[in-house]
Amino acid sequence: MRHILVHAKSFARIEDALKSYADHISPLVLSDEGDLKHAWGESEAEGLLAYGTQDAYFSPSVITFFQTLLSHERLDWFQSSAAGTEHPMIQATGKKADLFSGSHEQAHAMAEWVLWAGLDFFQRGPERRAAQAERKWARLPFKEIASTHWLIIGFGAIGEAVGARLRALGAKVTGVRRSAGASEHADEILHPDRLVAALPNADAVLLSLPLTPQTERMADAAFFEAMRSDALFLNVGRGGLVDEPALLTALDGSEIAHAMLDVVEEEPMSEDHPIWTHPKITLTAHISALTAQAAARTDQVFLENLERFLNGQPLRNQVAAKEFS
Amino acid sequence: MRHILVHAKSFARIEDALKSYADHISPLVLSDEGDLKHAWGESEAEGLLAYGTQDAYFSPSVITFFQTLLSHERLDWFQSSAAGTEHPMIQATGKKADLFSGSHEQAHAMAEWVLWAGLDFFQRGPERRAAQAERKWARLPFKEIASTHWLIIGFGAIGEAVGARLRALGAKVTGVRRSAGASEHADEILHPDRLVAALPNADAVLLSLPLTPQTERMADAAFFEAMRSDALFLNVGRGGLVDEPALLTALDGSEIAHAMLDVVEEEPMSEDHPIWTHPKITLTAHISALTAQAAARTDQVFLENLERFLNGQPLRNQVAAKEFS
Repeated sequence: MRHILVHAKSFARIEDALKSYADHISPLVLSDEGDLKHAWGESEAEGLLAYGTQDAYFSPSVITFFQTLLSHERLDWFQSSAAGTEHPMIQATGKKADLFSGSHEQAHAMAEWVLWAGLDFFQRGPERRAAQAERKWARLPFKEIASTHWLIIGFGAIGEAVGARLRALGAKVTGVRRSAGASEHADEILHPDRLVAALPNADAVLLSLPLTPQTERMADAAFFEAMRSDALFLNVGRGGLVDEPALLTALDGSEIAHAMLDVVEEEPMSEDHPIWTHPKITLTAHISALTAQAAARTDQVFLENLERFLNGQPLRNQVAAKEFS
Repeated sequence: MRHILVHAKSFARIEDALKSYADHISPLVLSDEGDLKHAWGESEAEGLLAYGTQDAYFSPSVITFFQTLLSHERLDWFQSSAAGTEHPMIQATGKKADLFSGSHEQAHAMAEWVLWAGLDFFQRGPERRAAQAERKWARLPFKEIASTHWLIIGFGAIGEAVGARLRALGAKVTGVRRSAGASEHADEILHPDRLVAALPNADAVLLSLPLTPQTERMADAAFFEAMRSDALFLNVGRGGLVDEPALLTALDGSEIAHAMLDVVEEEPMSEDHPIWTHPKITLTAHISALTAQAAARTDQVFLENLERFLNGQPLRNQVAAKEFS
């Protein structure tokens, strides 16, 4: 018997499925208010499993979630709903856990966010809405996304999910990543060494890579200067990838046309931050993966891995211990 | 030698290409101000050709354009940039012309408009923008378009272009058209007889069919009542397909969730029309085909057909004379 730590909202989705394993697991359910409950009654358990989801990561009780598993004598397995492992809490969790597995199921939701952002920019959404508000019959031409060239920096699961959709719509896709070799979801793959030279060719530049000491503030003044003045900048990675004052300067100086951001340095962002009201920035609140569909897919990954864990089989999307050193 | 009537903006794009045919054609160029000029000098000509584009159809001098060709002794060939032939001016033109050809090249632009509209609805664009304007860090979940089911009424070139893109993104597509048989761009094809029964299944319902006596005001009170209350209604066909008072009533009564309209009954729409300010309507000004890319593709169709016409070969996209009876 093992306890299994899970947020209440995630538990509500998977409780029925978990019941098949009632002889082996006992859910320990955390609410947004920070209450921890043995959902199926108290029971002696030898170890702890945990399922980290968006419900937990963005909960007011997120600290309790990580404190509970980090203070436990033993953490046998941690399943994360995300692919990223750079957050200090996840790093600490990865160090403690015997087994750690991630998920790429958020990538499909994030790719749809990118399409929304790209289409709204190339179709001049803000001008269309302004014209309607002013009751102006404005015949505004737009640019087909099929004619655009995208530079996708970080060509892992998210970048590939974006690339696949863009190419299906006829756009040209250049992926930037360290590992060599072609991808069926890009017209070409470039090594990061060639990034700066590639920036001037792109109608849209997307950051979809992890935050590391090497990538921190990679989108800086020189980066924006290299971009075209009519180009769109998008970020679904991490806020720390961007030098935000440099981004604001580039937008104010018309060095780039617009920024679509789902992540910022400070989350939630304070009320007086200039990003809120900048006319050339569209901001969403770190929600590009926040779909019921992504949650359901991730639950399936977790349930499949739970079956594998209990049978002593290798996990899907297992993350190597060296990622947490 | 034949005269060839063309709008000045279209002529500017194709003049270089037309020069290859300078021994056979003499351009007669119409400006927005209504001035007609023999661009390459006066010349005796036996007949008239004409290239009808968005530049001409939406020009202040559109009446002069059609008067010129309709009052001419003889109209050998008319190439339209559009697929539709129901407009009275086009009907009159088709009756007069010895040969009439259309174009499906606008369909790709229109399909991108539909994706923009669909993604903005399912991703709650209006709420995202309101949250940003209010400086609220609002973590609004959204629905992946991959999980949605679309009913596309009128499954010709436009419907197929939309269907192809939606299916590439993982959505389910039901096409409605009279001609039987499967389409690679739809999961199923229904006869119009089965339309009302299919409406309650759709997350989004798109009108992409011509306006005829049979289709006029087809989207009426019963139509909207059959739709789901959380569903999106879109129209890229013609304003006359919709009973607009019934649409407004359906939106006000929350029988459907939102309408995305690129066409309305009255174009340009008068300033006091209630559609402008309705909170559940997003309106664009008949621009879903207005891209430089669509114009360039259509120019290629025209130039290819010009070559064919001058060589006495069959035209691409020729429209049968019976369509104009």
